[in-house]
Amino acid sequence: MLHSADMGTGALKGNLVVGQAGGPTAVINSSLAGVIQEARRHQAIAGIYGAAHGIEGVLKEEFYDLGREPLSTVKALRRTPSAILGSCRRKLTAAEYERVLSVFRAHNVRYFIYIGGNDSADTAHQVSALARDRGYELRVMGVPKTIDNDLPFMDHTPGYGSAARFLAVATMDAGRDSEAMRTVDKVKILEVMGRNAGWLAAATALGRRTLGDAPHLIYFPEKPLVEEHFLSDISAVYREHGYAVAVVASGLRGPSGQELVAMGGAMFTDSFGHRQLGGVGQHLTQLVVENLGLKARYEKPGSIQRMFISCVSSVDAQEAYLVGKMAVRRAVQGGDDAMVTILREPGTEYRISIGQCPLSAIANAERRMPPEYINETENHVAAAFVSYALPLIGGPLPEYARLGGWRVAKRLA
Amino acid sequence: MLHSADMGTGALKGNLVVGQAGGPTAVINSSLAGVIQEARRHQAIAGIYGAAHGIEGVLKEEFYDLGREPLSTVKALRRTPSAILGSCRRKLTAAEYERVLSVFRAHNVRYFIYIGGNDSADTAHQVSALARDRGYELRVMGVPKTIDNDLPFMDHTPGYGSAARFLAVATMDAGRDSEAMRTVDKVKILEVMGRNAGWLAAATALGRRTLGDAPHLIYFPEKPLVEEHFLSDISAVYREHGYAVAVVASGLRGPSGQELVAMGGAMFTDSFGHRQLGGVGQHLTQLVVENLGLKARYEKPGSIQRMFISCVSSVDAQEAYLVGKMAVRRAVQGGDDAMVTILREPGTEYRISIGQCPLSAIANAERRMPPEYINETENHVAAAFVSYALPLIGGPLPEYARLGGWRVAKRLA
Repeated sequence: MLHSADMGTGALKGNLVVGQAGGPTAVINSSLAGVIQEARRHQAIAGIYGAAHGIEGVLKEEFYDLGREPLSTVKALRRTPSAILGSCRRKLTAAEYERVLSVFRAHNVRYFIYIGGNDSADTAHQVSALARDRGYELRVMGVPKTIDNDLPFMDHTPGYGSAARFLAVATMDAGRDSEAMRTVDKVKILEVMGRNAGWLAAATALGRRTLGDAPHLIYFPEKPLVEEHFLSDISAVYREHGYAVAVVASGLRGPSGQELVAMGGAMFTDSFGHRQLGGVGQHLTQLVVENLGLKARYEKPGSIQRMFISCVSSVDAQEAYLVGKMAVRRAVQGGDDAMVTILREPGTEYRISIGQCPLSAIANAERRMPPEYINETENHVAAAFVSYALPLIGGPLPEYARLGGWRVAKRLA
Repeated sequence: MLHSADMGTGALKGNLVVGQAGGPTAVINSSLAGVIQEARRHQAIAGIYGAAHGIEGVLKEEFYDLGREPLSTVKALRRTPSAILGSCRRKLTAAEYERVLSVFRAHNVRYFIYIGGNDSADTAHQVSALARDRGYELRVMGVPKTIDNDLPFMDHTPGYGSAARFLAVATMDAGRDSEAMRTVDKVKILEVMGRNAGWLAAATALGRRTLGDAPHLIYFPEKPLVEEHFLSDISAVYREHGYAVAVVASGLRGPSGQELVAMGGAMFTDSFGHRQLGGVGQHLTQLVVENLGLKARYEKPGSIQRMFISCVSSVDAQEAYLVGKMAVRRAVQGGDDAMVTILREPGTEYRISIGQCPLSAIANAERRMPPEYINETENHVAAAFVSYALPLIGGPLPEYARLGGWRVAKRLA
């Protein structure tokens, strides 16, 4: 199928640069595969160049010639986690934006597809604005990507569904572990990613079948953590079930906005001003040990939560591919300075449509969990979140056995 | 098929108690399913009782009547991680061993199947010895279980293959993450389980295809860590590849035997005298930051590494089921005070046979990595380890894409 914009209507001719930015995901290479496959279908697009490490590769003129990659490699991208082009976190200076434009001019780049989140949308928007200002015809389209699910103006982001599936399964499994070991370890704290939004923390609830199942408690960055409440929550769960599994987002803060980090926590600040987090799980574990005298441990699965493609959501992988394709298609059709978005159609059956919104609206904005997705006591999800998230994780979660639990009558005192 | 020992030869008649002990695994319930299925085939065995939380449930007379569980539940156990009966870590006093015998007498328990590792073998051996001493006819058989793979007199232990598979995949994925993010994070340290033996740390190497792939460095509890060597190793890998991924076992120690823990590390000691570890990854991360000035992070996947049944090894699951069955079969045939073992047959094709050895030989003994499985510089595996371990993980690991890497010629200065 050829598109009308291609059919002799004088689509902008030139090369295409695609880049990947921010934290990689299990499906960001699916989006790249979509970009490559769609670009190959348009005569207006000559070369398909992959920027090494996102905008940094543009600055350095480091481009891979993706047009030469065989179809087998492009297909294999759809089952390969992480960002195969290399990623970056880099805020450009005004001079560097000029350099980007010079490089694009030198290589006759007319299409720039940037796969990323808020910060990357900002970068792409600045590039688009500068090109417009200088009269250089360039089509810039963003492809949404972030396990954090925190981009505004869309139902959800590619990457989230797979990370959500992994965290749901991992919490089922780590929860069964705690349940079996409750005569030894009383409290387990799982520290999951999430700087300002609790979408990933919330996803750990998706495999929960009964109130006795982990996670018993979830704490969101949207709600300041009062340590006294946290400790009384843990106590109450422990009294009821004999053990407690709590999930905390790495960006959890206290009532005065202070970070909750133990020694060894935040060590670095990246060029967007984000501090590297880590330590809230350890801090709260120490709090439990010292205040409740319960044996406690924390776990921090780290980068596998965004990357574990063995637990990919098929829905997420398909959508990631689709938004890659659609970004190219819309760019060829004249789209610029916009990000492709995923919208959910009304109705009980899960269906999506593809929309778009200005890059500047995405740039540096964040979509946090709405209040109706958090329970009244601010320590777990509400049912509305489960309805929202279940269609995103790509099919049912595993079903584990439960014993009937018939007891043998005692015969001794 | 009925066994000769059953056919009117007067097999010991009575009830069977099965218990699960120590750290749960992805396949310990497969062993339980094997025990139940085999026990149902023997007329000598009347009741099949599951002890809640291992030997603790025996002390408290807390038994589940597993004979009433439907076949569908027994089958579901084979795809359910963790210890469904509950587990324990408990060293009994002399008085408690007497209590165990009293409980067994009161319930006419004649078969005791204990699924566990070294400590559990010790417990089972003491029970067997006491029964013999008191003239109470009891058959005690151990079923090997530990992700640590550290039991002597066998080729490997059920639980290891699945944990090894998970860690191989997780390291591939976390490694791809680091590779993509090497313009931001330079060093990643993965802290994996392993108190005294490096089998799990070694398994992280199984998905490595080239020297450029993670893990670049692996440190084993068998070899004291010299921090200066560690830092120069990290430096060398970083200079060569632009980033470094190192795996450390949680039980790593320094040259004088000291634990390498940061603040917040060891907090508790269990009743077998094992300290709860955790902190070596953080400690070494701090060391890298302070001494090399490289941005570094650590990850600690925790209990999912022993539990993530979505990444189960089919070989491991089948063998776990088999050793459960064989323990019951041998007990009915007169076996006592022994643990069933898995032996590897000579030859290039992977085949096992089932052996057994005295519980006392297993009790409190540990099998560490042999020197030929560790490379000469003591910072990675040797090829012999890969040959040993690959058959255990149940089929090939995922194949991820690599770009051809054709570069576009530069046009600017």
